[in-house]
Amino acid sequence: MKKGVESLIAKAEILIEALPYIRTFAGKTFVIKYGGKAMISEDLKSSVAQDIVLLKYIGINPIIVHGGGKEITQLMDKLGKKAQFVGGLRVTDRETMEIAEMVLVGKVNKEIVNLINRHGGLAVGLSGKDSNLLVAKKKSPATSGADSSAVDLGFVGDIEEVNPAVISTLCRSGYVPVISSIGVSREGEGLNINADHAAGAVAAALKAEKLILLTDVEGIMSSEGDVSTLISSLDRQKAEEMIGCGEISAGMIPKVRSCTAALSEGVSRTHIIDGRLSHSMLLEIFTDRGIGTMVV
Amino acid sequence: MKKGVESLIAKAEILIEALPYIRTFAGKTFVIKYGGKAMISEDLKSSVAQDIVLLKYIGINPIIVHGGGKEITQLMDKLGKKAQFVGGLRVTDRETMEIAEMVLVGKVNKEIVNLINRHGGLAVGLSGKDSNLLVAKKKSPATSGADSSAVDLGFVGDIEEVNPAVISTLCRSGYVPVISSIGVSREGEGLNINADHAAGAVAAALKAEKLILLTDVEGIMSSEGDVSTLISSLDRQKAEEMIGCGEISAGMIPKVRSCTAALSEGVSRTHIIDGRLSHSMLLEIFTDRGIGTMVV
Amino acid sequence: MKKGVESLIAKAEILIEALPYIRTFAGKTFVIKYGGKAMISEDLKSSVAQDIVLLKYIGINPIIVHGGGKEITQLMDKLGKKAQFVGGLRVTDRETMEIAEMVLVGKVNKEIVNLINRHGGLAVGLSGKDSNLLVAKKKSPATSGADSSAVDLGFVGDIEEVNPAVISTLCRSGYVPVISSIGVSREGEGLNINADHAAGAVAAALKAEKLILLTDVEGIMSSEGDVSTLISSLDRQKAEEMIGCGEISAGMIPKVRSCTAALSEGVSRTHIIDGRLSHSMLLEIFTDRGIGTMVV
Amino acid sequence: MKKGVESLIAKAEILIEALPYIRTFAGKTFVIKYGGKAMISEDLKSSVAQDIVLLKYIGINPIIVHGGGKEITQLMDKLGKKAQFVGGLRVTDRETMEIAEMVLVGKVNKEIVNLINRHGGLAVGLSGKDSNLLVAKKKSPATSGADSSAVDLGFVGDIEEVNPAVISTLCRSGYVPVISSIGVSREGEGLNINADHAAGAVAAALKAEKLILLTDVEGIMSSEGDVSTLISSLDRQKAEEMIGCGEISAGMIPKVRSCTAALSEGVSRTHIIDGRLSHSMLLEIFTDRGIGTMVV
Amino acid sequence: MKKGVESLIAKAEILIEALPYIRTFAGKTFVIKYGGKAMISEDLKSSVAQDIVLLKYIGINPIIVHGGGKEITQLMDKLGKKAQFVGGLRVTDRETMEIAEMVLVGKVNKEIVNLINRHGGLAVGLSGKDSNLLVAKKKSPATSGADSSAVDLGFVGDIEEVNPAVISTLCRSGYVPVISSIGVSREGEGLNINADHAAGAVAAALKAEKLILLTDVEGIMSSEGDVSTLISSLDRQKAEEMIGCGEISAGMIPKVRSCTAALSEGVSRTHIIDGRLSHSMLLEIFTDRGIGTMVV
Amino acid sequence: MKKGVESLIAKAEILIEALPYIRTFAGKTFVIKYGGKAMISEDLKSSVAQDIVLLKYIGINPIIVHGGGKEITQLMDKLGKKAQFVGGLRVTDRETMEIAEMVLVGKVNKEIVNLINRHGGLAVGLSGKDSNLLVAKKKSPATSGADSSAVDLGFVGDIEEVNPAVISTLCRSGYVPVISSIGVSREGEGLNINADHAAGAVAAALKAEKLILLTDVEGIMSSEGDVSTLISSLDRQKAEEMIGCGEISAGMIPKVRSCTAALSEGVSRTHIIDGRLSHSMLLEIFTDRGIGTMVV
Repeated sequence: MKKGVESLIAKAEILIEALPYIRTFAGKTFVIKYGGKAMISEDLKSSVAQDIVLLKYIGINPIIVHGGGKEITQLMDKLGKKAQFVGGLRVTDRETMEIAEMVLVGKVNKEIVNLINRHGGLAVGLSGKDSNLLVAKKKSPATSGADSSAVDLGFVGDIEEVNPAVISTLCRSGYVPVISSIGVSREGEGLNINADHAAGAVAAALKAEKLILLTDVEGIMSSEGDVSTLISSLDRQKAEEMIGCGEISAGMIPKVRSCTAALSEGVSRTHIIDGRLSHSMLLEIFTDRGIGTMVV
Repeated sequence: MKKGVESLIAKAEILIEALPYIRTFAGKTFVIKYGGKAMISEDLKSSVAQDIVLLKYIGINPIIVHGGGKEITQLMDKLGKKAQFVGGLRVTDRETMEIAEMVLVGKVNKEIVNLINRHGGLAVGLSGKDSNLLVAKKKSPATSGADSSAVDLGFVGDIEEVNPAVISTLCRSGYVPVISSIGVSREGEGLNINADHAAGAVAAALKAEKLILLTDVEGIMSSEGDVSTLISSLDRQKAEEMIGCGEISAGMIPKVRSCTAALSEGVSRTHIIDGRLSHSMLLEIFTDRGIGTMVV
Repeated sequence: MKKGVESLIAKAEILIEALPYIRTFAGKTFVIKYGGKAMISEDLKSSVAQDIVLLKYIGINPIIVHGGGKEITQLMDKLGKKAQFVGGLRVTDRETMEIAEMVLVGKVNKEIVNLINRHGGLAVGLSGKDSNLLVAKKKSPATSGADSSAVDLGFVGDIEEVNPAVISTLCRSGYVPVISSIGVSREGEGLNINADHAAGAVAAALKAEKLILLTDVEGIMSSEGDVSTLISSLDRQKAEEMIGCGEISAGMIPKVRSCTAALSEGVSRTHIIDGRLSHSMLLEIFTDRGIGTMVV
Repeated sequence: MKKGVESLIAKAEILIEALPYIRTFAGKTFVIKYGGKAMISEDLKSSVAQDIVLLKYIGINPIIVHGGGKEITQLMDKLGKKAQFVGGLRVTDRETMEIAEMVLVGKVNKEIVNLINRHGGLAVGLSGKDSNLLVAKKKSPATSGADSSAVDLGFVGDIEEVNPAVISTLCRSGYVPVISSIGVSREGEGLNINADHAAGAVAAALKAEKLILLTDVEGIMSSEGDVSTLISSLDRQKAEEMIGCGEISAGMIPKVRSCTAALSEGVSRTHIIDGRLSHSMLLEIFTDRGIGTMVV
Repeated sequence: MKKGVESLIAKAEILIEALPYIRTFAGKTFVIKYGGKAMISEDLKSSVAQDIVLLKYIGINPIIVHGGGKEITQLMDKLGKKAQFVGGLRVTDRETMEIAEMVLVGKVNKEIVNLINRHGGLAVGLSGKDSNLLVAKKKSPATSGADSSAVDLGFVGDIEEVNPAVISTLCRSGYVPVISSIGVSREGEGLNINADHAAGAVAAALKAEKLILLTDVEGIMSSEGDVSTLISSLDRQKAEEMIGCGEISAGMIPKVRSCTAALSEGVSRTHIIDGRLSHSMLLEIFTDRGIGTMVV
Repeated sequence: MKKGVESLIAKAEILIEALPYIRTFAGKTFVIKYGGKAMISEDLKSSVAQDIVLLKYIGINPIIVHGGGKEITQLMDKLGKKAQFVGGLRVTDRETMEIAEMVLVGKVNKEIVNLINRHGGLAVGLSGKDSNLLVAKKKSPATSGADSSAVDLGFVGDIEEVNPAVISTLCRSGYVPVISSIGVSREGEGLNINADHAAGAVAAALKAEKLILLTDVEGIMSSEGDVSTLISSLDRQKAEEMIGCGEISAGMIPKVRSCTAALSEGVSRTHIIDGRLSHSMLLEIFTDRGIGTMVV
């Protein structure tokens, strides 16, 4: 039994180690972009849900933002529609938009909500249409990338205005808001929004303490793909330089841009972390060194 | 000009006529089952949205509950799945359930939310999964009707518990909740719920002042289809008798049963009205005689 | 029956027409100067009371201010006292002041309070003495007009300070305040106050959305008495010019001056409307064109 | 100087003597019927106003109720109307009622309000019409006394219902309510109410700690007019016996009846005290022995 | 690095294991009797303080109660006074009482307060005299035990009344109350109170979720001193039987009696645990098996 | 009896005289340094406690700060330790500090708390350690006075930071905070603080209306010891001049410096008054002339 007790004491000490972080973050808001493998593996899904519920119970306000490109493509396939991308953005005709909205709001969002509730939280799903949460306008063809000069992306939008009152109402009453990255135009049309950008815009509107992007890489590396070159901390200027010289490229660009945009509107810290790791959020939040790359 | 003024005065007097009803219903909760033609015709959709926003602004708390069978069947068709019904209930395998949830939560709900927002309200969509709003259990095959003795209906459920706290939170903060009739089992599975029953259960949980079911008929008629036999007011016992002797049949049964169940749990008045009429809700609420059939 | 329903729908549409105005004015404060024929005719009294109660129920805070010169003169006559006016102002000795206060506070105010209560509101009467609502100082003889250089007007005052806390307390608790235009000097003497000025001062102190003066004319006309020259909208500078060149004269001057003074202290819009019209307030508030003359 | 300090210390000790009473009565409601000589003499008026303001500042909620028979008679005289009494009650035709209301609400009430405000309080006047504070019904001729069998008293009423919400609203916000003993019938007619009864009914509706009636006698005496027979304390049964055997008579009967009625509805203590004494209220409240007669 | 991450993940999983307990106890009150070796060893003091601060931050309200017999005896020794005990109770003359109060309130309490504050909490010390928190009466000589029939224990008391309002005020505002086991008689004298009893009385007054007594033994053992006979869970009846037959004896009796008394007044669970173990409170609270003996 | 009543009326008039002061000071905070003879004589202790409770009941927030040098020296004597002073400051080794803390917090504070509670208040004791109320740092040897250049004063401190939140929490809930002049260093050590300075720092942190220092002299005299030269009112500049030229000396210097420091941080008025006089606080507060010396 002695042994058992010693192991228990070791566990208790780990709780105690968390105390300074709990004190620091009590009452703060964290916006978490949920995506990638962490949204697919059953174990990781459970790990993410546990982390979110734990954050809520120790006094932090987690806000979840999600996309779901793969699921959209799957339903399109079933319906015999071919997905087409230009400059990383989905060309979204009216029918595609309807599919995207059904999949994100009616399937992915509900799975996340349900997952959190099964782990003891009380989640409530929102789309950008609910109480006009994410007002957006259609991207103009000209701005959608170098090679897409002539392509109309259709119902793809940029966020113009966030109306976060409903988020605050829900947080104050103990709920965890889960937001689908669907925007609404001033004319009432649904628009496809990049989920990283949506997370950044929500974090900015709430002046969140942290914006955490769960990705499928370890973080930003100075030599892409080489984990030994992982950059722990990066400032906004350096990040722009790395984009400029191509060291940051492809899908990482919108993530870094979400971070720098959020920072410029009052978010304290932003993190790009590896969602493939169990409890990666807790590792980031409850250790001094953190994990992944912090953009400040 | 004189003429113009007289017509304006006549209009003002109509506002004044509404005053006693405004006084009576200020601060009360109305649960409205939205369905049928009122959900399809552009004019009627606009009329319903206007009515809801007006109710909200004059101090009534409208709560919307909706289904959407036709839209579900449409998507099933597109995906090459055949809809199958037993005793009026959709046989719902796992794939059908997923389709139903996507259509109701990701399409129909968002259209209603958007519609209300376009008319100046602030609607927020909810499904029964959000904060475990509608906890249900699977229907047992035995109870699903006379001719279906051997059929497992699959993911079709009966509501066991309503957790309405999130509705109250939203109403108090000025939002109009719009609820999809999707339930969640204690194991976390989505379940297809009859929307009339969902509306009745929500009304009961909120001790609503009124439950209003928008239908595609004028109300309950003693001789079905003969409008001249429309029954203005009906008590619970008489309603059960009419079901017993077959005067009330088919799709009207769940509507009447929702009413009687809601009444037995503290709802003050329930109404089955004709959603095909412009502003039918206002006609019911703001006239002495009302329209349709009141079950008390 | 069909016909009946159509007429009902037409009525419902009129309610719906009011919706944008209800939305715009929800939670706003309207100060209404009640006087003239609208205070004498039984039909108009009822119409005004209905309008006030309707405003209150749809979320607007109406504040009523009234005078009552004719009733004062009547009681003076009965008591054998001759009313005397200089420059439109009543010469008010101590006995006249006592009569004025009894008539305004004990008779006219109570009739208005009672009228509103009979129509379903909850009105509470106030005089300028209650919680020092209207602190005033005696007019100096010199300022009372061109031809009155030698006349002491007695207990006639100008408002120096409005203490509106009691109004806010009553509004927040659901009451309609009805204010007699009696002021109180710093020494505690009652003073006769022009009711138009009192309404303007109260509107200014409350930063009211609207100041509405019910009068016995259609509004301001560029050619006095000729309705076809009615001016719908007038800015402050133009109003002063019209006073300067005599186009606005006599009893209209204090009305216009109340409006311009209120505007200069933060009231959004002021209206001079025809109280002889049924529901004239509603016509002003719930139509785009409005009625009477708006001074902005 | 020594002497001066000693005298100051003696004064401080008097404040300290008041402490147990301040502790006992903090937050309690006292209803005070103000009338008689205390309402006429300038010194006594000032003394009463000071007492009321002191009570308010040390945390007690004083509510003032007043009549004003003499002032009504004076104005009737001036208007050439003869006051007529049957069984101690004023025969009140419509014109008399109008006079009574003007005098009580427009003159006496405002004088009291003003008096309290001049001494540093914030008083707000109310009549029974304001927010339907005192709902009454006409006395039937049969109940108005032995010798008046055939006389219709006119607009004289008995209180049927008190709606004290406006009183609580005002008290909570720091105001001293001053109430004229005017009732309102369900049809909206003003009715003359005995002020002692009005005070008792208000005290009962508020479950007041104390009802204090300021009178022009030392209290109840077993031998009328002989101060040496003053009764300090009297229970309800004994009071009824003394009325029965005529030891309590005339104007003292409604006072005693107000007390016994208030006691039966939850008022803790009622007092009939001598308003002709300076600071008689303070003497009653802040001494162990009290003054006058306590009915318990 | 891989290794480091795995160890971090193992730590995160320990946080997640705590989640169900955090959910269960959020918002609950725990009364903790602090004493014995846990109050002497620097390491244990630090461990207890960390545990208390952690509890506070995860939403539990910890209330600390302490005695301090050894420190009292030390100061008595220095002052040349000999401590004398009868039936386990200190004979407490006036001088001893003064010493006890100085030591407990001025030394031991302040050390605990300071310890908690050094670990990031905000503790506030209280004695039973503060706002009359612990009202007690002197023990009568007759009740003080078998062999003390003739001995007056002096200023030793039993708690008669707990006034816990100040505790609630402090908890609600984020403070950790630390209470010295000093009572006050109705005459204002300080009285020495057994700290186990004080903790039980405070837990009862607050209807605490848990009463935890930190002791210097592993818990209750059926064979005293033989750890292998440790009883995990015990009901009140069994506890009384064990006291009756001598299996529970000496200093353990007041501990068990505090538990049974607290249970009978609404405390949910009581625990006698080994304060000599690091983080023993966390082990009790955050493991299914718990440690020590639970009396239920 | 007549005579008795007249004397009662005279007493009531004294209450009324206090009214303007009650009005002026309602809701204000007074910090009172309690010390000297007023803390020793039974009569004066009772007088001070009564004054404090009276202030609390009439709506003022009294905060008490105390030292207790004599009691510390007494316990040191009993323990065979010799008190040593340098430049008026006690040389405080670790053992002396422990004695000081026990005496102030465990004895003097509890006597004052108890005294106030016996007179009907609800006092709660605090030391500078409670919720880090008085954060201080050790005095450097160099600053401790002309002749002490080489002496380390030990655990004697100057206040660096006041955290008054706990005081406000207690005041708002109806308690009277009583504060021992013990500070705590950032390292957690107890430090001896001059009680006059502690009172001044607390008054400054609370932006108190008044700081009142109870002393054993009549006030500041231009010729020390000659009461006929008592200075009623003194400004900060003049006070500094008098210190400079030695007219203010010895123990009066820290008192005057507390006043001037408090004034410079927003305290409205500071008073040095004679605590040997019964009810000296009331005399200061409730008379126009006040007593003692006011520093402004």
